[in-house]
Amino acid sequence: MFNKIVPRSEDYAKWYTQVIRQAEMADYAPVRGCMVVRPYGFALWENVKEQLDSRFKATGHQNAAFPLFIPMSFIEKEAEHVEGFKPELAVVTHGGGKKLDEPLVVRPTSETIIGYMYSQWIQSYRDLPVLINQWANVVRWELRPRLFLRTMEFFWQEGHTAHATHAEAKEETLRILDIYTDFAVNEAAIPVIPGRKSESEKFPGALTSYTIEAMMGDKRGLQAGTSHDLGQNFAKAFDIQYLDANQKQQHCWTTSWGVSTRMIGAIIMAHGDDQGLVLPPRLAPTQLVIVPITPKNREDDKQAVMDAVAKICETLDGVRYHVDDRHDYSPGWRFNEWELKGVPLRIEIGPRDLQKDQVVLARRDILGRDGPRGGKTFVAIDNVANEVKQMLDTIQADMLKRATAFRDANTFEPTSYEAFQEVVEEGFARAWWCGDEACEAKVKEDTQATIRCVPIAQPDGAGHCIVCGAAAEEIAIFARAY
Amino acid sequence: MFNKIVPRSEDYAKWYTQVIRQAEMADYAPVRGCMVVRPYGFALWENVKEQLDSRFKATGHQNAAFPLFIPMSFIEKEAEHVEGFKPELAVVTHGGGKKLDEPLVVRPTSETIIGYMYSQWIQSYRDLPVLINQWANVVRWELRPRLFLRTMEFFWQEGHTAHATHAEAKEETLRILDIYTDFAVNEAAIPVIPGRKSESEKFPGALTSYTIEAMMGDKRGLQAGTSHDLGQNFAKAFDIQYLDANQKQQHCWTTSWGVSTRMIGAIIMAHGDDQGLVLPPRLAPTQLVIVPITPKNREDDKQAVMDAVAKICETLDGVRYHVDDRHDYSPGWRFNEWELKGVPLRIEIGPRDLQKDQVVLARRDILGRDGPRGGKTFVAIDNVANEVKQMLDTIQADMLKRATAFRDANTFEPTSYEAFQEVVEEGFARAWWCGDEACEAKVKEDTQATIRCVPIAQPDGAGHCIVCGAAAEEIAIFARAY
Repeated sequence: MFNKIVPRSEDYAKWYTQVIRQAEMADYAPVRGCMVVRPYGFALWENVKEQLDSRFKATGHQNAAFPLFIPMSFIEKEAEHVEGFKPELAVVTHGGGKKLDEPLVVRPTSETIIGYMYSQWIQSYRDLPVLINQWANVVRWELRPRLFLRTMEFFWQEGHTAHATHAEAKEETLRILDIYTDFAVNEAAIPVIPGRKSESEKFPGALTSYTIEAMMGDKRGLQAGTSHDLGQNFAKAFDIQYLDANQKQQHCWTTSWGVSTRMIGAIIMAHGDDQGLVLPPRLAPTQLVIVPITPKNREDDKQAVMDAVAKICETLDGVRYHVDDRHDYSPGWRFNEWELKGVPLRIEIGPRDLQKDQVVLARRDILGRDGPRGGKTFVAIDNVANEVKQMLDTIQADMLKRATAFRDANTFEPTSYEAFQEVVEEGFARAWWCGDEACEAKVKEDTQATIRCVPIAQPDGAGHCIVCGAAAEEIAIFARAY
Repeated sequence: MFNKIVPRSEDYAKWYTQVIRQAEMADYAPVRGCMVVRPYGFALWENVKEQLDSRFKATGHQNAAFPLFIPMSFIEKEAEHVEGFKPELAVVTHGGGKKLDEPLVVRPTSETIIGYMYSQWIQSYRDLPVLINQWANVVRWELRPRLFLRTMEFFWQEGHTAHATHAEAKEETLRILDIYTDFAVNEAAIPVIPGRKSESEKFPGALTSYTIEAMMGDKRGLQAGTSHDLGQNFAKAFDIQYLDANQKQQHCWTTSWGVSTRMIGAIIMAHGDDQGLVLPPRLAPTQLVIVPITPKNREDDKQAVMDAVAKICETLDGVRYHVDDRHDYSPGWRFNEWELKGVPLRIEIGPRDLQKDQVVLARRDILGRDGPRGGKTFVAIDNVANEVKQMLDTIQADMLKRATAFRDANTFEPTSYEAFQEVVEEGFARAWWCGDEACEAKVKEDTQATIRCVPIAQPDGAGHCIVCGAAAEEIAIFARAY
């Protein structure tokens, strides 16, 4: 551990991988493209899951589990869907020592198998809506893996709902987009932009895809969650019908939506710095680390410090804390480890602090003594719990402010295509777009940037397409992206 | 819904499947052998998970996620392991449109892939113990599936730990066995027998396997969880070594242990009756259903009843309740549905109850007015919350008592092999066993019964093998089993 991490400015991709591996978040598996999520990374994922899951349940969704294996013929039933996913499939051809009659696909996503089950379960309008989510692993063949961002197997939740009307399905799609936005902003401290995907970027088989788009520390965009209005495409392919109140058969309207372990990558890249991870307090597996500093060969002092630590711990109800009592490691070594791991707050406490009835609070997001209040504060030992809780709230709020300021400082509104091509290398470009796929394709060819989304929040009025100059009614966000 | 369920006495297997499907716990998937766990079944599984997970975490274990795909060569590294699992493997031969150089196995269990990762992570005695669990799906080819009991894909937790000494690994194996026993007895209300598996029944690759064995409603045995002392078998196959305090390389000692969705099958079969499921209150997704009984065309009465229901709900803090206000369904129809679904407790409340300031409490485990206190009780409306909480505790305790009495009444201690052959058809046979595999094999051939376990709790003294008459030091439990 503690090989030096390359600075972000020098090699961002290398920084990313080094931080993840040295902080023991994840590791590459022996199978190319696969990932092992180690306990520290998984604890972060568990907190992400808990926050999303409680929001899903509060809006009437239930969890279930659908099969890993999908008959190849199912994948082929929806034309756009098969075109989108066929190149990425892992295929089981043998089972129980025999060649299978029909190959089985390891699910890349579950619209097809769930569509089939819904066609069995849904009979009448009284059965609607069906609001189901599953937490699952999915597989998409991937030869250029990056931990959390692009791996052959990844973990996610996929919601699948069926409704009686298109209006209800649309409402559901946007309700979930709101949940994703709320989660990203208020839990992950990532100021995402909710918006609509362009036709060329939407989910294979969807009518309309919505997304939340975030800016990473290298100013690139990252899609952090998607919500799809599937229209009746899958209902027709899988015959999901219901008898309406007038005794007429109708096709359902379905949606699907997902957030994956990619969110972990987003958290790392939105907040990390050259010292390592910086985790938002609300999701951090450990919110506070207490580092007792005990002089060698002075057992009395050591005992007094450890007694004080024990007393502090008793007051820390509701705080996820850890005491690092590895006395044989130097304080500096221990500080480094927890900074690398992005623990939001640290308490340092030694004999001299005890004499003054105080401890040191050190923020991870502001290292050293920099920043408006300074990264380190002395607080009275009797008031530690209050100070810790307040400080965690402050850190959470400051992280969001900082990420928002960073994004805004790197978002440009170019007025010529020439200027556009320049600024899109440097961050997000907000620009009028006529809606023509040809303009979108030209941008991609000229700059490698894509339309991240057409934001839900649009300015008044209209303008001229940044590419072709034609009349345009919507602003789009263009950026190079993960 | 509400096709009649076949009585258990008539066709136990059919009863089992009908209950599961009609209660909407699970369904067969279009891929043969695969299962869909529907929301009601999954909610029960979530409660099982939560109870086990908190026990694992309280004893220092952390969750992680290891890959679904394992190189075929890994499976082949441990001789017994490959022999045990090879016939059950699902094999991916194609990915991303190409034939793979080395086929990938969809994990049937993860000792091999986790062993490989541990060999990378563990360097020194300071890294030990490693205490990791994962909640995962696994696949074992299965052509005679039964929902929850035997499906091609199933869900489980698999713990994998590595230790410096054999003593520590043994201690871990038994600590987990205790956790499983505690969970089964105190949460699932199933009186399991913790014990050791015979050599022929142990996990492929283990030194010693431990198990918790339960009796189902048809008097058959069911293995409800296992904990394996793997010795150094996998450490040697995967080179999991550490440098000890004397700077010498040593192989680790490892364990693995698991409880699966089979536990759901155990809960169904240990407690269910001819009306359907009977769920233990501590795990039931819904603990209490409130059924307002509102006369037709009397809006005042209906309003008064619904107001009273709303007031009751406000007091039900900490109770998982559901109000079934489908006024267009008759009370009897609604009662049946919740009885089928095994909800432990029901409140009935109508205008006449209101006049007397009371409600009816109806127990699921004692239907109608049978039983010592009667299945139905009238309780004062002001005291509903207390009565509900007490009654849930009573039901939980009574279910365990009933299951224990049932098991004990169907456990026999035959003294001749002739008697043994008779009673083993009727339940559990406790009998001395010399430890010889030949005797075990003879029993299996003569009666289809197997050794469920050699219980941890043994009587004093010694006896003579029930099969061969030779000196025997241990009692074993024999039974026909799932």
